[in-house]
Amino acid sequence: HRSMAMAKREKGLAVRPVPAPVPEAPTPSATPVSATAPTSARSVKWGDLEDAAGGLERPLLRQRGSNTTSQMAVVGTNVCPIESLDYEIVENDVYKQDWRSRGRIQIFQYQVLKWLMALLVGSFVGLVGFFNNIAVENIAGYKLLLTSNLMRQNRNLEAFLLYMACNAVLAGSAAAICAYLAPAAAGSGIPEVKAYLNGVDAHSILAPSTLFVKIIGSILGVSAGFMLGKEGPMVHTGACIAAMLGQGGSRRYGLTWNWIRYFKNDLDRRDLITCGAAAGVTAAFRAPVGGVLFALEEATTWWRSALLWRTFSTTAVSAIVLRSLIEYCRSGNCGLFGKGGLIMFDVSSRVTTYTATDIAAVILLGILGGLLGALFNHFVDRILRRYGVINEKGAPYKILMTVFISLVTSCCSFGLSSLSPCVPCPPELAPGKCPTIGRNGNYKKFWCPAGHYNALASLFFNTNDDAIRNLFSGGTDSEFGVYTLLTFFIGVYTLGLITYGVAVPSGLFIPVILSGASFGRLVGKVFGSGLDTGLFAIVGAASFLGGTMRMTVSVCVILLELTNDLLLLPLIMLVLLVSKTVADCFNKGVYEQIVRMKGLPFLEVHADACMRSLVASDVLSGPVITFSSVERVGSVVNTLRRTGHNGFPVIEEEPFAPAPELCGLVLRSHLIVLLNGRTFTRAPVKTGAAEVFRKLNPFDFAKVGSSGKAMEVDELRLTEEEMDMYVDLHPITNRSPYTVVENMSLAKAAVLFRDLGLRHMCVVPRTPGRPPVLGILTRHDFMPEYIRGLFENVLRFSFFCTYLSI
Amino acid sequence: HRSMAMAKREKGLAVRPVPAPVPEAPTPSATPVSATAPTSARSVKWGDLEDAAGGLERPLLRQRGSNTTSQMAVVGTNVCPIESLDYEIVENDVYKQDWRSRGRIQIFQYQVLKWLMALLVGSFVGLVGFFNNIAVENIAGYKLLLTSNLMRQNRNLEAFLLYMACNAVLAGSAAAICAYLAPAAAGSGIPEVKAYLNGVDAHSILAPSTLFVKIIGSILGVSAGFMLGKEGPMVHTGACIAAMLGQGGSRRYGLTWNWIRYFKNDLDRRDLITCGAAAGVTAAFRAPVGGVLFALEEATTWWRSALLWRTFSTTAVSAIVLRSLIEYCRSGNCGLFGKGGLIMFDVSSRVTTYTATDIAAVILLGILGGLLGALFNHFVDRILRRYGVINEKGAPYKILMTVFISLVTSCCSFGLSSLSPCVPCPPELAPGKCPTIGRNGNYKKFWCPAGHYNALASLFFNTNDDAIRNLFSGGTDSEFGVYTLLTFFIGVYTLGLITYGVAVPSGLFIPVILSGASFGRLVGKVFGSGLDTGLFAIVGAASFLGGTMRMTVSVCVILLELTNDLLLLPLIMLVLLVSKTVADCFNKGVYEQIVRMKGLPFLEVHADACMRSLVASDVLSGPVITFSSVERVGSVVNTLRRTGHNGFPVIEEEPFAPAPELCGLVLRSHLIVLLNGRTFTRAPVKTGAAEVFRKLNPFDFAKVGSSGKAMEVDELRLTEEEMDMYVDLHPITNRSPYTVVENMSLAKAAVLFRDLGLRHMCVVPRTPGRPPVLGILTRHDFMPEYIRGLFENVLRFSFFCTYLSI
Repeated sequence: HRSMAMAKREKGLAVRPVPAPVPEAPTPSATPVSATAPTSARSVKWGDLEDAAGGLERPLLRQRGSNTTSQMAVVGTNVCPIESLDYEIVENDVYKQDWRSRGRIQIFQYQVLKWLMALLVGSFVGLVGFFNNIAVENIAGYKLLLTSNLMRQNRNLEAFLLYMACNAVLAGSAAAICAYLAPAAAGSGIPEVKAYLNGVDAHSILAPSTLFVKIIGSILGVSAGFMLGKEGPMVHTGACIAAMLGQGGSRRYGLTWNWIRYFKNDLDRRDLITCGAAAGVTAAFRAPVGGVLFALEEATTWWRSALLWRTFSTTAVSAIVLRSLIEYCRSGNCGLFGKGGLIMFDVSSRVTTYTATDIAAVILLGILGGLLGALFNHFVDRILRRYGVINEKGAPYKILMTVFISLVTSCCSFGLSSLSPCVPCPPELAPGKCPTIGRNGNYKKFWCPAGHYNALASLFFNTNDDAIRNLFSGGTDSEFGVYTLLTFFIGVYTLGLITYGVAVPSGLFIPVILSGASFGRLVGKVFGSGLDTGLFAIVGAASFLGGTMRMTVSVCVILLELTNDLLLLPLIMLVLLVSKTVADCFNKGVYEQIVRMKGLPFLEVHADACMRSLVASDVLSGPVITFSSVERVGSVVNTLRRTGHNGFPVIEEEPFAPAPELCGLVLRSHLIVLLNGRTFTRAPVKTGAAEVFRKLNPFDFAKVGSSGKAMEVDELRLTEEEMDMYVDLHPITNRSPYTVVENMSLAKAAVLFRDLGLRHMCVVPRTPGRPPVLGILTRHDFMPEYIRGLFENVLRFSFFCTYLSI
Repeated sequence: HRSMAMAKREKGLAVRPVPAPVPEAPTPSATPVSATAPTSARSVKWGDLEDAAGGLERPLLRQRGSNTTSQMAVVGTNVCPIESLDYEIVENDVYKQDWRSRGRIQIFQYQVLKWLMALLVGSFVGLVGFFNNIAVENIAGYKLLLTSNLMRQNRNLEAFLLYMACNAVLAGSAAAICAYLAPAAAGSGIPEVKAYLNGVDAHSILAPSTLFVKIIGSILGVSAGFMLGKEGPMVHTGACIAAMLGQGGSRRYGLTWNWIRYFKNDLDRRDLITCGAAAGVTAAFRAPVGGVLFALEEATTWWRSALLWRTFSTTAVSAIVLRSLIEYCRSGNCGLFGKGGLIMFDVSSRVTTYTATDIAAVILLGILGGLLGALFNHFVDRILRRYGVINEKGAPYKILMTVFISLVTSCCSFGLSSLSPCVPCPPELAPGKCPTIGRNGNYKKFWCPAGHYNALASLFFNTNDDAIRNLFSGGTDSEFGVYTLLTFFIGVYTLGLITYGVAVPSGLFIPVILSGASFGRLVGKVFGSGLDTGLFAIVGAASFLGGTMRMTVSVCVILLELTNDLLLLPLIMLVLLVSKTVADCFNKGVYEQIVRMKGLPFLEVHADACMRSLVASDVLSGPVITFSSVERVGSVVNTLRRTGHNGFPVIEEEPFAPAPELCGLVLRSHLIVLLNGRTFTRAPVKTGAAEVFRKLNPFDFAKVGSSGKAMEVDELRLTEEEMDMYVDLHPITNRSPYTVVENMSLAKAAVLFRDLGLRHMCVVPRTPGRPPVLGILTRHDFMPEYIRGLFENVLRFSFFCTYLSI
């Protein structure tokens, strides 16, 4: 899975300089380490279990090596080091002192800030969504106008060449900014946001450059006529905007206040980014409730009731901003941006009384949608791996490939439309309605004679939003023939597959909705159901969305908000139930697949089956590196230089305690800040918190945002004399780290780790007379790949527990 | 808060025999216990902190007593003992052996069962919802028909008396079955379901008798013309149905299978009950998405992504069942049940372009709604406490009070309508539309002359559902005058307050929606906005719902699904934002208030501020009672008899371990089953799991459902000889209990306890050479009342941390 990332690292082909990976905690150092958990403890343990299980024969578990899981992952097409986020409250003296000093005003400021941020995120995302749409409508509209004008003069070859050239240029420029400025902006971005909200941080996921390229690249990519959407990128954009606002100001530019530090932690940032992602969906689909549900169902790992309320407010603001801007544009102030653009299929309400045949057709559609959706996921995975190899070769290759795919797409859409015959307009339509020329509209003229339209061009030779609107439209049963729909479906399905993975911001919603809608219409036509085929298109889109993304409630609500037709609800629910169930038999949802493929260490909801046979100490690797509660400065500095760990247990030793005991956990970032404060003593004595506060501000310990830069250990420049002095770690030690006993079942330890959103978890011994801490468990120690690598024979037991993961 | 429950218990006035309370774990036994946490540890700890805080003066915390929190709570109007639910996986050898023995078929069965149950719950709740509606429509319709007929003959006094008598009889019978059969069925039921889903179990919450009375009582109560709804009771009904189906069959009637035991745990039951509650909302409002969101936002404490999907399926099934039954009734097969009945306000879509004045009106409506909602909550709390005193006096008093309130309601609705003047029908309406006579419809004739209608009677002299429909209806701006609306609003608001709390199943949704809708229309009229006043009624209902229940997304979606008008969304969101924010300044949501008043130990999302200054060992009370891993039978039996604790730490001692160490945790119920298996030995030796499995089945250890009865220790009947023998506790000991170190911050321990849904949490010492377990923390130890009672001076610090609870 991680081969891509690892291969890249080994070859040194990374596009941007890759800093040395910073593992979380005791992953192996240079020296190979044998199994370190005390053998005595283990033998006791297994003896117990064997006895306990009633003499059942259990294979002796052998630990094979140490944790070598990759600390790198692919973000967009960018390989970068990853770190975990930490949602634990670090209850050290600095923190305690800090909150004791807070007045009511600061608490009020903090609350106001939280809400202000959320509402700001909502408005900004709404604005960006509007800008995005207006830009796409204008660029793509101008392109289509030019081409149509040439065709009206019967200069068809020129029209084709112009169309192809426009697309290629747009595609090339999108790929260029993406490849050179921010490779992390390629792709949908939803997997990356999902991983971030699961606690995986990589600098480039939410960097400002990513935001810039995501917006511009998405506009260019959609305008280039690719079979891709702007919805996924909008989610990523929303998250990026939230991350930027959640920086808590910039110290470099003096744009910061002291009290803003209360906001500078991973937890508040996570909440804000959740709001941003929800606002992104809202801005893309104009679906505020759908946005909240998307965040809840697909994006987040942790959810709180208070968050529902804040997210809802954010999406409400987003929706209101969008709505008022569209009102403004209705009067024609926005260039080629007309009524359309923003996906909002005001499909008129149809009478929906359905018979048993209709239900059967819908169930069939659900089954086929599930199958085709699972197949789509399978191919996406395959194709992404192939593309990964090409993308690794460097920026020029990325651009070339993008342009190539653009040419293929142009040929498809123009060529297939050309091969499609002209159909006479239905006589009941008003003359202005059929055929239409130019930017959008149904019944496209293409190069047909007067009074005729080209059915395939009505779908292909349009923006994707307009194609969806045409497919969803009611009362157009006879517009698209079976062959037209079949051709379009195959075209879209294939183009959607080969397009995702090019180095351009590209969402998956639109290709899936388009292929689902055309397939739905096809089934409706073939089945000869009495229902409107436009309705079948909506149901088909739902079935494909359920089959690929495996979202249910959010898809349902988004489609409801798109079509404004509540009477469709039972049909949509039914088809989603069927398609998701069918697709779940084959593989996972497309975003989960991509997360896994990119090597992002995602903590699953359910502990892997293999963990059930293991205990916490089984997966500990490497010798644990601890500090004494009053430690020599040189020793701290050297350890920080030598290892990349982010958390170290602190041991209370003589003379501060009669026997060694666990004092707590100290973070690398806090250690560096403390050392920089130079509160050193010549002898090992407790200096206490007061000394620290004289030299340092609680703000100094706040976590820097994703655009900030934390101090490195090498920037400390300590003198030889200082290196020989002592530093009191008590003030920065988290006195309440979460701990598990060594013989805790690994599955239960994983539940604890995930549910509380930890970064480090201390493993303590069960029996007295041993070191007070045996090791630290981090995210990587809970990765199934790592555990399965450690204990191959545990695999035998794994299927017993799969039922728990339902 | 708990005085009601405790007073009742002391007076011995409980309606049903109250079993001795079974506390969770080491709460104090008869002997008063002094502060037990080792003083040495404490002094070290506080010394540390003082030092750490930089010499800050901190008051010495004094522990004042032991945990005497009530183990009783009020369910409906029934005082009964409560227990906690346990969502931890009890990883003992029985469990391990059990899952090792599961084949693929059993796993498949388990999965199928889970889904089957959920879908069954959905259909049953849908059926009950339909039955409920049809019964109400028929009973209330018949009542209104009779009265109308008398009025048509101008026998107005007789009509009034008949109306009053009908109402009183219906109310009396509802109160009678509620008071005598199942006092737990009184009230809304949502607070009880909320508490159950938080982990508080009381036998009567989900008992079959409660279900029966809830359904019948709700029908009678609504038919009696009370100002109450059937929505809250439907949620409770849904939860009860789910609980009954989730029993995992009945062993008494042989209706059980061996593999069904995998389902017999609190976790799976909780999931199913969540589905049931969601289906209840769906059946009440015909709002499947709203049901899911209600469950998510209001009902549950824990939520998983997988649950979203299952809940959604349940509500989908519910909605489909309801829909098809209504289709069937359209043809007139259901007596007086016509088109209406099921709340589904097919309010036609209005053009909604709003001006700044409209927005201002909506914001004002939000502010007023928030204020009036908060006031409503305040009065509900006051009135419920008053009623509690009356209800305590016994069943006859409950019935008398109910009948009295019914008479007041009848006088109000008939009397106020009589005082209202007759208004000529608007000329543009068809003759059949105004005036209407009989069961439902707008523009009620009451006793007006031909061609006239009585505006107040159109609201009062109707079922509540029809009154809401009339208020929501568009194009009826002039139907209700300002004074009519004002009178109705004051009447409904007051009646709603005095009705909730009578011993009848009674929901709060309908009174709140009714008063909100009338108030909204009033504001719309007074403001003279250009928008339809029917639209203002909807917005007003939203503002009141936001102000009392503090739900946002779910109210929004429920109202959308009710009105089928998506264009209202921005207005509803805006008004909800405002009203919730305003109301939150004054008090908590109405359900949370009631939960607290009833003495249900609800674990809040955020640890109380006072916990931040304490550590885990500070709240430990009573000496911890432990067992040796191989214990004398007599000692186990005596301990079980003497204490009511549900969990006991097991200590591994000589000769099984060189020094005492924590082996795990054993549950009371498992101990009794094990003792009943009589796997005793004469000498203290390990018998191992095999011996246990020879005599007992893993099924025997499964938790009994709420209608079952677990074995008591007194039923064991052990001989004197057996009492002197030894029993090996290893096979039933949970080897992986969650533990915290004694100096763990109490706030962080609370997060662990709540997020993982624990029932017992072991506190272990930090320093060696002490007993391996210092105590057990349970739900009651985290109750703010208890902690504040223990340490009065901690209160000083509390406001510092309130910001964390936003």
